Amino acid sequence: MNESSSPPAAGYRAAAAAGTQMFDLVEELYPICRSITGDGVRETLRRVSERLPLTVHEVPSGTAAFDWTIPDEWNVRDGYVADLAGNRVIDFQAHNLHVLNYSEPVDRVVTREELFEHLFTLPDRPDWIPYRTSYYNRNWGFCASANQAAELTDDEYRVVVDADLEPGSLTYGEYLKRGRSEEEVLISCHVCHPSLVNDNLSGIALATELARTLEGLDTHYSYRFLFVPGTIGSIAWLSRNEAQTAKIHCGLVVVCVGDAGAFSYKKSRRGDTVIDRAVLNVLTTTAPDHKVIEFYPYGYDERQYCSPGFDLAVGSLSRTTHGEYPEYHTSADDLSFVSAEQLAGSLDTYLQVIEVLECDRRYLNLSPKCEPQLGKRGLYGAVGALDQQPIDVMTILWVLNLSDGEHSLLDISERSGIAFRDLQRAVGALLASDLLAPADSAVTDVARIGGGSGQ
Amino acid sequence: MNESSSPPAAGYRAAAAAGTQMFDLVEELYPICRSITGDGVRETLRRVSERLPLTVHEVPSGTAAFDWTIPDEWNVRDGYVADLAGNRVIDFQAHNLHVLNYSEPVDRVVTREELFEHLFTLPDRPDWIPYRTSYYNRNWGFCASANQAAELTDDEYRVVVDADLEPGSLTYGEYLKRGRSEEEVLISCHVCHPSLVNDNLSGIALATELARTLEGLDTHYSYRFLFVPGTIGSIAWLSRNEAQTAKIHCGLVVVCVGDAGAFSYKKSRRGDTVIDRAVLNVLTTTAPDHKVIEFYPYGYDERQYCSPGFDLAVGSLSRTTHGEYPEYHTSADDLSFVSAEQLAGSLDTYLQVIEVLECDRRYLNLSPKCEPQLGKRGLYGAVGALDQQPIDVMTILWVLNLSDGEHSLLDISERSGIAFRDLQRAVGALLASDLLAPADSAVTDVARIGGGSGQ
Amino acid sequence: MNESSSPPAAGYRAAAAAGTQMFDLVEELYPICRSITGDGVRETLRRVSERLPLTVHEVPSGTAAFDWTIPDEWNVRDGYVADLAGNRVIDFQAHNLHVLNYSEPVDRVVTREELFEHLFTLPDRPDWIPYRTSYYNRNWGFCASANQAAELTDDEYRVVVDADLEPGSLTYGEYLKRGRSEEEVLISCHVCHPSLVNDNLSGIALATELARTLEGLDTHYSYRFLFVPGTIGSIAWLSRNEAQTAKIHCGLVVVCVGDAGAFSYKKSRRGDTVIDRAVLNVLTTTAPDHKVIEFYPYGYDERQYCSPGFDLAVGSLSRTTHGEYPEYHTSADDLSFVSAEQLAGSLDTYLQVIEVLECDRRYLNLSPKCEPQLGKRGLYGAVGALDQQPIDVMTILWVLNLSDGEHSLLDISERSGIAFRDLQRAVGALLASDLLAPADSAVTDVARIGGGSGQ
Repeated sequence: MNESSSPPAAGYRAAAAAGTQMFDLVEELYPICRSITGDGVRETLRRVSERLPLTVHEVPSGTAAFDWTIPDEWNVRDGYVADLAGNRVIDFQAHNLHVLNYSEPVDRVVTREELFEHLFTLPDRPDWIPYRTSYYNRNWGFCASANQAAELTDDEYRVVVDADLEPGSLTYGEYLKRGRSEEEVLISCHVCHPSLVNDNLSGIALATELARTLEGLDTHYSYRFLFVPGTIGSIAWLSRNEAQTAKIHCGLVVVCVGDAGAFSYKKSRRGDTVIDRAVLNVLTTTAPDHKVIEFYPYGYDERQYCSPGFDLAVGSLSRTTHGEYPEYHTSADDLSFVSAEQLAGSLDTYLQVIEVLECDRRYLNLSPKCEPQLGKRGLYGAVGALDQQPIDVMTILWVLNLSDGEHSLLDISERSGIAFRDLQRAVGALLASDLLAPADSAVTDVARIGGGSGQ
Repeated sequence: MNESSSPPAAGYRAAAAAGTQMFDLVEELYPICRSITGDGVRETLRRVSERLPLTVHEVPSGTAAFDWTIPDEWNVRDGYVADLAGNRVIDFQAHNLHVLNYSEPVDRVVTREELFEHLFTLPDRPDWIPYRTSYYNRNWGFCASANQAAELTDDEYRVVVDADLEPGSLTYGEYLKRGRSEEEVLISCHVCHPSLVNDNLSGIALATELARTLEGLDTHYSYRFLFVPGTIGSIAWLSRNEAQTAKIHCGLVVVCVGDAGAFSYKKSRRGDTVIDRAVLNVLTTTAPDHKVIEFYPYGYDERQYCSPGFDLAVGSLSRTTHGEYPEYHTSADDLSFVSAEQLAGSLDTYLQVIEVLECDRRYLNLSPKCEPQLGKRGLYGAVGALDQQPIDVMTILWVLNLSDGEHSLLDISERSGIAFRDLQRAVGALLASDLLAPADSAVTDVARIGGGSGQ
Repeated sequence: MNESSSPPAAGYRAAAAAGTQMFDLVEELYPICRSITGDGVRETLRRVSERLPLTVHEVPSGTAAFDWTIPDEWNVRDGYVADLAGNRVIDFQAHNLHVLNYSEPVDRVVTREELFEHLFTLPDRPDWIPYRTSYYNRNWGFCASANQAAELTDDEYRVVVDADLEPGSLTYGEYLKRGRSEEEVLISCHVCHPSLVNDNLSGIALATELARTLEGLDTHYSYRFLFVPGTIGSIAWLSRNEAQTAKIHCGLVVVCVGDAGAFSYKKSRRGDTVIDRAVLNVLTTTAPDHKVIEFYPYGYDERQYCSPGFDLAVGSLSRTTHGEYPEYHTSADDLSFVSAEQLAGSLDTYLQVIEVLECDRRYLNLSPKCEPQLGKRGLYGAVGALDQQPIDVMTILWVLNLSDGEHSLLDISERSGIAFRDLQRAVGALLASDLLAPADSAVTDVARIGGGSGQ
């Protein structure tokens, strides 16, 4: 909870064009073939850098990161399966999912039988190409639609992967928006998937736009954005910043935020941290059809942030979660699967969560013995019609009743069922009426929460 | 929990005529026009004083009470709307709800349009007169049925309110029934409503009869009865008795106890205090269709008792709660809406709650290692038929098993699901068999709970 | 929780013939007329002694046991109701339930009316003989089917009970299987019922076979088996071994374990002890239709173990619990009511519970910062088909994530919903990979849990 002296302004909102800007970035990044290392990630971070002052880090292959070692760097130029007449029947140039991600280089003629040991398809979805990787087991391979595979009837084929898999480095991006406090909120997204949109170009775009929105705001917390390859990237960051993690107040892993599904929230390992409460508070108000997922030690980089040696307050806020939609990890997770509007809705939800984090604090009712007389301060509905929308009296009474120095606004919202933003309006009015003060105030100059400003 | 040396006698019961006596008082008080100050309250308290040795307090207008100030005193003699021919079309003499409560004096001829700005009706219930007040905004006004209002077609009317609104005092009544302990149970009812029966002549009558019943009993707790104008009355009492509140063990606000509805209990702010547990224990046993309402900072004087600066263990036990029945705050809340029988049922429930408060204590099983042999003490059903109703063995076993000095009878009742009064019978038998003793006893002379006395 | 140095081997299993052996013992014990004292119990314990090195104790009549006194010993040789022509119409030789258990000796001619005051039947089940006792009220009596009773139309009958009821002793059996620790798990069954099979020859047989199974195993805990007459037997044991009870880690009362019903578990008084958690963990995995019964101070000897002066962690694991099946305490609880297969299923469940008790411990993830790299240790599914059944990766990840020194395997099982035995397999693999160590280990030589041994 924010215990600093001045309450932050409420009503965070993204720019009107944010949805379009996110979708534009998604489109721009879509053709790039990414992996956990290599030029695809570098190019992706370069495009993000055009929007954000990103710091890009390179971690050499062979560097130890806890139990792991940064692998050789993989760069692929081309790859195909061709018949012996030279016709490409599976072709990386047509879709970068066709080459097994991290495939070792190969150039051989193989029997149909051997080819099929290295060929991945989705029999249930015969038109779609699956996404497969082999980061830590050296292997070569291809992915194709089941329909394509069915046409491979020759006895022999030429298999070519024109790739480098040799010492280089792992690349990740980092951006810190400084707030008044050194306590940090961590926003992390994985940048290692090739041409897959919801997972996770949507997350990259949302994190980028969220950072741009916060850049211009006076925040209590500092916000650290990580654009990291999945698993090995977050492990590398944690191993290089272990001491820093003590400053992490809480965080979110951003993934699958562009589809049309309802919101899902996967809780942190502890399950009742401030991020869990803040996200669920916002979703309860704004997305009654949301789904809550208890923590489990699988998924995306929350697995690392929530490993027992760190146990950070990090959850993951998505729309449809990975594995829950058939398009997941297939060529069908394409540009048609997400929209600017859905991205904008996700960004707005992230901003509301951040607003709760920023504005959650304890206040003190300065007239705690019996109710103060609201009427003489214009805070109570008078007889007859009112010519303007008053702040709901019940909301004012809840804030007064529970502002005993023990309950924060989140506590009050959870107990009363009143939306956090409505409580903020009441707080604004009560601060203006000198009926309330921040509970931590030896404060002389209390900035007002902008409750009355026409929200 | 009562930890004094002698357990109180159980089986509190009101007099057989209590229902009739309560209804008689309701009828007697019905015609009086009450408000938060004035002679109506004084006359009401005088009638109660004929039944109880009430102390009547006068608090001068202008006296500060926390954030409030005692207002000018209001006394109304007459009021009407008349056509210009002098025919009264809305008349205080017909029903005291017709004059806006706390209306300032007026004697003018006004246009129909201006009249309607000061006239309150209930379009959905065209036969009923609403009850409206304007205590702290000086205003004049009238209330009428929508049917009456529809007949007001003249262009001009004379409006007369013959009232005084000037410095005087606020009046409230107080009665203390002393028990062996200085710890107090607070019973509070509001006395400010004019001719409205369920809200709250029913509460005034129940509190009066409850006090009369307790007067003759030897109780552990002291019982403080407050007959106060709503809001300003409880605020005045709290401001004048702030130090006293430390003695308040718990309490109930008595309101809407005469209608035919099921019981409702609104919890105290803390929600798990002894009064919450005692009331819910009784209702669970005797009124399975009861309704539980979590605390919210609105309603009647529990709002003040539960303000954060006091946070007393005060709930409110009603039948249908305010606002939940259409007759609420209208002329239809009349003598036909309550009955002697319903009042008697409410009084009985209040008495059972008090019995739980008085009798809840911890006992010690004096034979805690294995079960004592009940059979040799005649506490176990023998072979064959029994010629008298035994105390249920399971009840005896529960009392023995949980009487380890940590569990009170309320705890045992909650865990076992056995009615508190049945536990008391078992306690009586076990005390008589020397298998049980009060947990707090360096006590030599333990009075027995009258469990065997044919209840 | 077991905090000793070496984790016990998992996968406890009874002998294949265990079901048959239990049923054979049941058959052998069925004809014997038992009571709370006397030669029937002695003969029963002698038969058990042929299978187990039982210690048999004799407690003289008149010995005090807390609030109780060991009663006179009862031995019955014969008993009948005969018409005056000498024809036995109710005959102990036909079924030992026909004589009221603990009937005093009698040899008289009585009127039909007097006879019926001493005759117990079950009108609702006219073919069945009820089981009735009169241990502590001297009385004579008979039990018969309602059909038999209907035929008793003579005016007078001769009633004969040829029994001794005089000073002797109470007999119980005890067997201690020593484990590495002095902490004990108590397994208690009552041995006082005559020819009733499910209640409780089934319990005697299961306890016997369970002891035989544990005899050959290296266990952490010691296991104390009590074969005691109901109520007075457990009270006698507790009074003679009061100091010993401090060593009791937890226990189970074994009763009604041979019928075809679903499992029922009655919790200990505290309700959340290790035995409650262990049993419910096993039943949740293996018997989803099981029933959970909150503790109540009635039933079998758990009443004594859970009396407030002891409050031991003792529950009772049954199939259909007493009183819940119509055959209960009647002649219909005969050999057809139980089966070898049902007994074997119950034994297996008891063994699984013991396995949880033995194997529940805390481990420490030795690579707690981020996930360890499972792939390089062969713990992660590789691309393509696997030629052997891997340990589920999610199970491994749960063990790693929660092995922070605070969570035991039971905790992990409860949180993850993964079966305890599956966690054990993962623990075995992780110990072998040096990714895990017992949390209490200053241990140098850690025996492995036999997770990989083809279970």
